[in-house]
Amino acid sequence: EIDFNRFLANLNNSSEIGKVYETGLNRLALTDEDKKMRDVFTEYLRNLGLSVRVDDVGNIYGRKEGEENLAPVVVGSHLDTQPNGGRYDGIAGVLLGLEVIETLLENGIKTKRPIEVVNFTNEEGARFSPPMMASGVLSGEFTRDYVYSTKDKDGLSFGDELERIGYKGRKENRLAEIHSYVEAHIEQGPILADENLDVGIVTGIQGTSWFEIAVEGDSNHAGTTPMEVRRDPMLAVAEIIHRLEGLAKEKAVKLTIGKFLAEPNVPNVIPKKVKYTVDVRADENYLREEFIEAMKETVEAVSHDRAVNAEIHELWESPTVKFDEEIIKLITDNSNASGYKSRKIISGAGHDARYINDIAPAAMIFMPSEAGISHDIKEHTEEKYLNICGNLLLKVILELANK
Amino acid sequence: EIDFNRFLANLNNSSEIGKVYETGLNRLALTDEDKKMRDVFTEYLRNLGLSVRVDDVGNIYGRKEGEENLAPVVVGSHLDTQPNGGRYDGIAGVLLGLEVIETLLENGIKTKRPIEVVNFTNEEGARFSPPMMASGVLSGEFTRDYVYSTKDKDGLSFGDELERIGYKGRKENRLAEIHSYVEAHIEQGPILADENLDVGIVTGIQGTSWFEIAVEGDSNHAGTTPMEVRRDPMLAVAEIIHRLEGLAKEKAVKLTIGKFLAEPNVPNVIPKKVKYTVDVRADENYLREEFIEAMKETVEAVSHDRAVNAEIHELWESPTVKFDEEIIKLITDNSNASGYKSRKIISGAGHDARYINDIAPAAMIFMPSEAGISHDIKEHTEEKYLNICGNLLLKVILELANK
Ligand SMILES: NC(=O)NCCC(=O)O
Ligand SMILES: NC(=O)NCCC(=O)O
Repeated sequence: EIDFNRFLANLNNSSEIGKVYETGLNRLALTDEDKKMRDVFTEYLRNLGLSVRVDDVGNIYGRKEGEENLAPVVVGSHLDTQPNGGRYDGIAGVLLGLEVIETLLENGIKTKRPIEVVNFTNEEGARFSPPMMASGVLSGEFTRDYVYSTKDKDGLSFGDELERIGYKGRKENRLAEIHSYVEAHIEQGPILADENLDVGIVTGIQGTSWFEIAVEGDSNHAGTTPMEVRRDPMLAVAEIIHRLEGLAKEKAVKLTIGKFLAEPNVPNVIPKKVKYTVDVRADENYLREEFIEAMKETVEAVSHDRAVNAEIHELWESPTVKFDEEIIKLITDNSNASGYKSRKIISGAGHDARYINDIAPAAMIFMPSEAGISHDIKEHTEEKYLNICGNLLLKVILELANK
Repeated sequence: EIDFNRFLANLNNSSEIGKVYETGLNRLALTDEDKKMRDVFTEYLRNLGLSVRVDDVGNIYGRKEGEENLAPVVVGSHLDTQPNGGRYDGIAGVLLGLEVIETLLENGIKTKRPIEVVNFTNEEGARFSPPMMASGVLSGEFTRDYVYSTKDKDGLSFGDELERIGYKGRKENRLAEIHSYVEAHIEQGPILADENLDVGIVTGIQGTSWFEIAVEGDSNHAGTTPMEVRRDPMLAVAEIIHRLEGLAKEKAVKLTIGKFLAEPNVPNVIPKKVKYTVDVRADENYLREEFIEAMKETVEAVSHDRAVNAEIHELWESPTVKFDEEIIKLITDNSNASGYKSRKIISGAGHDARYINDIAPAAMIFMPSEAGISHDIKEHTEEKYLNICGNLLLKVILELANK
């Protein structure tokens, strides 16, 4: 049994670092708040007597040795948040992983394999895009140079900011061999809550594509320029987005236009340029790909009709992922044995497990999200489910660590 | 005859202050660049021996005395620009006014009435909204407190910034009695250039309304939230703007969505809130009013269908304006006598003459804008037309100042 109150104390402690609007967190990757949380986390790891490593992209590992010199079982998630995001997303997974290790230490339980708890850098992708950058470096999806050179909206680079907060560690410290990876996370969607379940056994992750679409026309005066001669990118983009919504319905994909910028962004100037992002997701790759084809045609057609120039730039693609069957079975068996109400579920959100799954057997356990709200200060998960998930994680990790 | 080369030297001098991309200017109201231009302008006025005043909203006046103690003839415009705007908008009018006065001084020409050249603060409304704030204070349209309290996007107030650049003068210095006001300005539209004319005789200004529309829904995760349960303000706004475009065609009004902000503005978060401005203009008030009615219904209907909340906030209204018949006739007669090719024209853009017209007889003279481009670095007016306008202005001012 985990010490749930101890876990809760750690969670509440985290909820103060970057706190906004009472229940929210604003702890973007590599900000001062992220640094503060990292300091608290590493000090805690050291106090437990774990060996602590930081790698060259800022991932933090705390290691409990095993009885044999084997590849470790890894458990973790991320401590960064969205702007005005929630207190559970990522954080619950890291702190439950930590609690599992502390429970084993406290009870003097030895395992064959080492166990490592990890905090991955910049899972959210809110400040530096794309998301899950640092687990993506481990899997070989992104190069370190690419990650270092990504910039936030103020032009600050990942590499400089990582250095500034003092978490640019060494490449040798990266996770190399991994026996297995388990990540606990809140669902961030409404399915488990709607069906009144305790546990989600995650079988894979939806495919996701991100695009930036920039549409450029002629900047001119709002009062003097006749409508007929305008090349207005704003009106073009409104039509495009409205048509993409229809296409998303047709292809049954999830569509989000989350980021939108107009230039020069002044009431009485017809914009020169409008840029926005498209996030499209589907369980099946072919649906996502069909949507993308149709999206490109729509952008092309509308731009042509309106004599504006459009550029479509892919920011990120992550095809549909299937997690490891054996770990899924292990989670299922343990959950059933404990009498938890569970179901199999496909994750709508990306997670670090997505990239780790490319290099090692991985799977995830979901906790219900109240009303399915996430990436918002109203994000909430009941204590009961955090407790259930922690105990299930304990059993699964223990079993994996003795394999 | 004005000294055209002297005017050109002043214009070129101005074109260096806040210069961007070779041909453009970035000289937003009350910035360091605006201060620099004001310093150059006031020093020039002083060197001419004019008496210089700055009023409590930063308007700068240079006065040449008349033979009698009568209300002055006023000529001028503004020296601030849009972000990445042009070198002529406003500036040509101020510097031609200055050149008229210098020409009279140089030739020892006395007039019955005093003549004042004025630079109005923040005509553009790009940094502090609405436009033409400082001429609006003179006319009683805006209170000084209202103007002082407007804020730029970084939260800096007009009042503080005016003080910071050292141009908060005294209320007693405001223009009080005005005999007549004439403003020379570039057309900023394509009409004069298309018709190959030298001069536009401005009979009035289109009515303009500005709105800010804020649409609020539920912020949530792009990957986990089923499309059916979303309350997505971005998709609502795309539909609204697309429908407004159709309405604008129907009602024959000019429609511009120039400013657009999404919150939190992150690719994988369904926006919580989307805010945008609507600039609508028409020669006839009733057309603008009909459009606004229909716009409100559209916003209401779309928000209702999509269960999002919309708020419409009027930022500015300026009904259609008609300029003074006598001054229009004076301009027409002088233009014809000089053999200039001219036409009567309604201004699509607002100008300081719009508010001064509420308290004194006013009119304007337009110069052709190459390709109708303005509020852009590509803004250009041929020297020939600047020269014609300067000489026409000289005759008109001289005649008014002897009335
Ligand atoms: N869990 C999570 O919100 N990850 C961010 C990446 C994504 O948008 O799926
Ligand atoms: N002349 C000019 O661009 N004025 C700004 C106010 C407007 O948008 O009409």
